[in-house]
Amino acid sequence: MKYGARNNIVATVKSIQRGDVMSLVKFDVTVPAQMASVITTESVDDLKLKPGDTVQLIVKAVHVLPVKEA
Amino acid sequence: MKYGARNNIVATVKSIQRGDVMSLVKFDVTVPAQMASVITTESVDDLKLKPGDTVQLIVKAVHVLPVKEA
Amino acid sequence: MKYGARNNIVATVKSIQRGDVMSLVKFDVTVPAQMASVITTESVDDLKLKPGDTVQLIVKAVHVLPVKEA
Amino acid sequence: MKYGARNNIVATVKSIQRGDVMSLVKFDVTVPAQMASVITTESVDDLKLKPGDTVQLIVKAVHVLPVKEA
Amino acid sequence: MKYGARNNIVATVKSIQRGDVMSLVKFDVTVPAQMASVITTESVDDLKLKPGDTVQLIVKAVHVLPVKEA
Amino acid sequence: MKYGARNNIVATVKSIQRGDVMSLVKFDVTVPAQMASVITTESVDDLKLKPGDTVQLIVKAVHVLPVKEA
Repeated sequence: MKYGARNNIVATVKSIQRGDVMSLVKFDVTVPAQMASVITTESVDDLKLKPGDTVQLIVKAVHVLPVKEA
Repeated sequence: MKYGARNNIVATVKSIQRGDVMSLVKFDVTVPAQMASVITTESVDDLKLKPGDTVQLIVKAVHVLPVKEA
Repeated sequence: MKYGARNNIVATVKSIQRGDVMSLVKFDVTVPAQMASVITTESVDDLKLKPGDTVQLIVKAVHVLPVKEA
Repeated sequence: MKYGARNNIVATVKSIQRGDVMSLVKFDVTVPAQMASVITTESVDDLKLKPGDTVQLIVKAVHVLPVKEA
Repeated sequence: MKYGARNNIVATVKSIQRGDVMSLVKFDVTVPAQMASVITTESVDDLKLKPGDTVQLIVKAVHVLPVKEA
Repeated sequence: MKYGARNNIVATVKSIQRGDVMSLVKFDVTVPAQMASVITTESVDDLKLKPGDTVQLIVKAVHVLPVKEA
């Protein structure tokens, strides 16, 4: 399968906290990964982003979609 | 700073593709990271997720927020 | 009302699972609908998308906003 | 593959508008689909949602992820 | 219309930057507003959030949906 | 810190409703704020958006990320 998403990371399930409707699943990512972000060009300039910069990548857990072989 | 997000990954900018309004920034993540996903409990059951499972984590690039020290 | 969103689908509530803070609502969509996706042009090329292709459209339930006449 | 997402819709690509960084892809959905939304329980009460209600489901196109067999 | 969203803010369009596929629209919000966030309970504890705390609310512009009377 | 996000609003925590996995946090925003939205250029035309227009900005609470000084 090919995904229309730039971030596709292999991970291992570490823990699952079941809730009534929503659950929180944690993963270990041990393989070096490449990630991508789409932001406004205005933000690129505002952050003065350039190759080599160290940043933090923040992602809310609700935006992370796990996919598993059936 | 502390973030109300479970995913907080240290990364290095690798490339920047500037567009008219939106830009695509790519990063290298070399440090092993922990990631988290919030999904419906129904999805947990549907995927039969359990600790030790290998999954792919899919994240659209528009959901990845870079943060940089000013 | 007009919405700054390309996906605007008429649906009928089928079931509601109430949770403490979040609830899961399911809908039937019987009318043929048109949907739209914004992805990176890089993803378009990576998927080799072209008119006529059959795809699956994946949307996390947290991104679906129900609107109802008051 | 199984997805940690409640919305998984079969669709046909109708048109592609390529942009410099982002592209807009439109789809026809002809098969009746089931959709799901996760909202606050407070919103369920505020909307007075109940089975049988007709609603509009609004989804921004950036949240729609196309997946295609490789 | 009633929206299954907790954030519903009245604003005035200040500027529009048209791009090939995506555009950036800026707004002035002059009326005091109430906003809401859904985060993991773990994040609430991690941030030690309590009434009266001052925080920054970060929202990517792709998540802001403008609605206008037809 | 600088954020790759156009919406960065100062707010005060008003209430917290703790759930098993997810919590709902409400905020007061008293300072006039500027907000930004990225939508398709097609939506800009469809809404006939122009400077001076009054709109509603709808944001699902799951997309609002609180940040607090450590």
